[in-house]
Amino acid sequence: MFMQSPGEDSYSRNTSGFSQGKMSVVKLEECRERLRTELDNVVDFWLKYSHDNVHGGFFTCIGKDGKVYDELKYVWLQGRQVWMYCRLYRTMDRFHKPEILEAAKAGGAFLRKFARVPGTSSGQWKCAFCLTRDGKAVKIQRTIFSECFYIMAMDELSRVTGDEDMQLEAEEMMKQLIYWVQKDSSGLGRPQLPGDIPINSMAVPMMLLCLVQQLVEGRGQEVVQKYRELGNWCVQQILQHIQRNGTAILENVSPEGSELPGCLGRLQNPGHALEAGWFLLQFSAESGDEELQRTAIDKFVELPYQYGWDKEHGGLFYFLDVDGHCPTQLEWSMKLWWPHCEALIAILMAYSQTKRPELLERFSQVYEYTFSHFPDAKSGEWFGYLTQEGRVALDLKGGPFKGFFHVPRCLYMCERILDDLLATKDSAI
Amino acid sequence: MFMQSPGEDSYSRNTSGFSQGKMSVVKLEECRERLRTELDNVVDFWLKYSHDNVHGGFFTCIGKDGKVYDELKYVWLQGRQVWMYCRLYRTMDRFHKPEILEAAKAGGAFLRKFARVPGTSSGQWKCAFCLTRDGKAVKIQRTIFSECFYIMAMDELSRVTGDEDMQLEAEEMMKQLIYWVQKDSSGLGRPQLPGDIPINSMAVPMMLLCLVQQLVEGRGQEVVQKYRELGNWCVQQILQHIQRNGTAILENVSPEGSELPGCLGRLQNPGHALEAGWFLLQFSAESGDEELQRTAIDKFVELPYQYGWDKEHGGLFYFLDVDGHCPTQLEWSMKLWWPHCEALIAILMAYSQTKRPELLERFSQVYEYTFSHFPDAKSGEWFGYLTQEGRVALDLKGGPFKGFFHVPRCLYMCERILDDLLATKDSAI
Repeated sequence: MFMQSPGEDSYSRNTSGFSQGKMSVVKLEECRERLRTELDNVVDFWLKYSHDNVHGGFFTCIGKDGKVYDELKYVWLQGRQVWMYCRLYRTMDRFHKPEILEAAKAGGAFLRKFARVPGTSSGQWKCAFCLTRDGKAVKIQRTIFSECFYIMAMDELSRVTGDEDMQLEAEEMMKQLIYWVQKDSSGLGRPQLPGDIPINSMAVPMMLLCLVQQLVEGRGQEVVQKYRELGNWCVQQILQHIQRNGTAILENVSPEGSELPGCLGRLQNPGHALEAGWFLLQFSAESGDEELQRTAIDKFVELPYQYGWDKEHGGLFYFLDVDGHCPTQLEWSMKLWWPHCEALIAILMAYSQTKRPELLERFSQVYEYTFSHFPDAKSGEWFGYLTQEGRVALDLKGGPFKGFFHVPRCLYMCERILDDLLATKDSAI
Repeated sequence: MFMQSPGEDSYSRNTSGFSQGKMSVVKLEECRERLRTELDNVVDFWLKYSHDNVHGGFFTCIGKDGKVYDELKYVWLQGRQVWMYCRLYRTMDRFHKPEILEAAKAGGAFLRKFARVPGTSSGQWKCAFCLTRDGKAVKIQRTIFSECFYIMAMDELSRVTGDEDMQLEAEEMMKQLIYWVQKDSSGLGRPQLPGDIPINSMAVPMMLLCLVQQLVEGRGQEVVQKYRELGNWCVQQILQHIQRNGTAILENVSPEGSELPGCLGRLQNPGHALEAGWFLLQFSAESGDEELQRTAIDKFVELPYQYGWDKEHGGLFYFLDVDGHCPTQLEWSMKLWWPHCEALIAILMAYSQTKRPELLERFSQVYEYTFSHFPDAKSGEWFGYLTQEGRVALDLKGGPFKGFFHVPRCLYMCERILDDLLATKDSAI
């Protein structure tokens, strides 16, 4: 029952017509139409199945047909869903609906009430990783990510509600996050061990850069100034992951930007590199930094697409070892939904900034694989976890790490980029 | 390159002849011969590739052809390798060789020197989960398992060296383990959270029962007395995992033995249930408890084999959900080496105690799948991780969780059981 899906070579089926050589405005319009319809369906799915009207917050463990199979509430996904609802409500007319605003506010209220728990260091707050249905903390991670998504939720929610306390809360949590990352991480609760060397894990500067862009968007010079230095620091930390004379993006490097020994140092996560790529492209567009734009496209879009794409079965590998050893992650060869979401955004954004036709070719390849494998035409939303061959390995629609975030963010970003592209009646398309 | 292996339906190939209907002494002798040869090869592989003659201890991250791909030393696997070397040296003439004793002593010395680190509670010691090549602690788990394998190593090593300090050390660590499990777990370092309810996870009573059997084996009445109550407690804790009116073994239950909500409560791990099965069979044989023997065979051998076996592709699933939901573990449908090792021991032991022919049929089915899929005829040792269809997904021979333990323990146990079976010229075979 977990094996449904198109045949093994279906990734090569041409569903968009892009790769028939000639790009055309018509094809892009068809693509935008598909993205728009998908986004509407995905929003409907989560509005229909994920709301807990008894205790508040969102169910995220949702099965193939929308049934809740576990009531635990994962804080990453609570924060992400609040953020996504607000972003859609705030920036897209067709989602500017009371039910979406109400859902976002209810989710935000649940987060504010239950997500924060006292940290191990006095005076510091942590966010739990996982809560019971009624909000009791089950688990706290010794990382910064629950806090990151809490900040995203509070800042975006403050923009639609005008609630300045929320914005203040986001800024307060951000201050603590910066302290943990740049000054002293002991508040995260990890024991200091002699063999546990400090590392620059790409996820950290990526998330911080994402938060900087969130917090400064459309705000005054004062806020922009406040985070300018941090933004530049994040970019430099991300660029440190370009290794092997520019031929590879490595997931973990030393704080000085040198390669680390062993599996940790050789680990590659193509989807993560592509996500970093579009964060950098956004940053370079805002700052007008053309060299950064070139680096982002060459090293964080083209490169991970080249080494990350499975030439045999199509799709992006989840993990790779830069020297070709077998990764120790059991799921290394699986095809996950989110790297494909990030690839679609990164490649389309790179195309929209450069109009280089080969980027549109790449977009079409990822688009074809993605839309022929992940969406569930029968019950809605997308499958998240395929085998290397492209068959559905886990048929859940939501789980501890899959919620209302990567799919709608991808559809939303790509629709907007296509809107801009198609608005400029540029015959170069 | 990770896709090598027999074809998809190869599990149904008959390599032993067992399932051609008539059991015969000849077939069992062929089987014992194969097991013996495999054990010799596997021991040679680890003697050749895993020893660190510079810093001591064992490399466990070993690639397809024996190459070390990561130098981290995982403490579970250090302890297990010491135990396995000692057990082979002590109980099998052909392994009673100086090089095996020396390797065990060197591994034990590395463990004693580096594995123990101060715990979070004063006066308590923890064992690290992972060390650098030169013995610096990298990570400490907030569980009891590193300590369990430390105890196994020290006790078994003390038996071959006659070093009473080591036995004392094992007993001391055991005392602390019992305190963590039965009195106060705060020393493990997990924060007490309101939503983090106490659970009876099968791994804990299983490991403790295994340690009790290790510590009392062949020792005087005083030691047997000392651990009798604990042994009985472990058995009762394990039996609590029989749920759904005896139709399912669940991996996690409440301390009172009732089913837990959500994925956690519905989780099944057939290989783990089968491993518990042969621990219980050993215990029932020693105590002459026939009712426990029946329960062990019906509920912990027959039952997990029935629900755990993949009717489509063969092999045992790694995880299942008792209600048929999709497990959230990405690797749920993969075929891992160790559940098959545990199944071979459990089913053959059940047969040896009962001589029920259908058990030998089951053994032959698991034997055929296992030996047609996991051993690497080219480079030695076994692959550990196959896709659901039975293709090699990870081609490493050793990793963070695969070392010199499950394969040799299985081959060793099965060879000994067959020795006994074939020694009694019982025509019922």
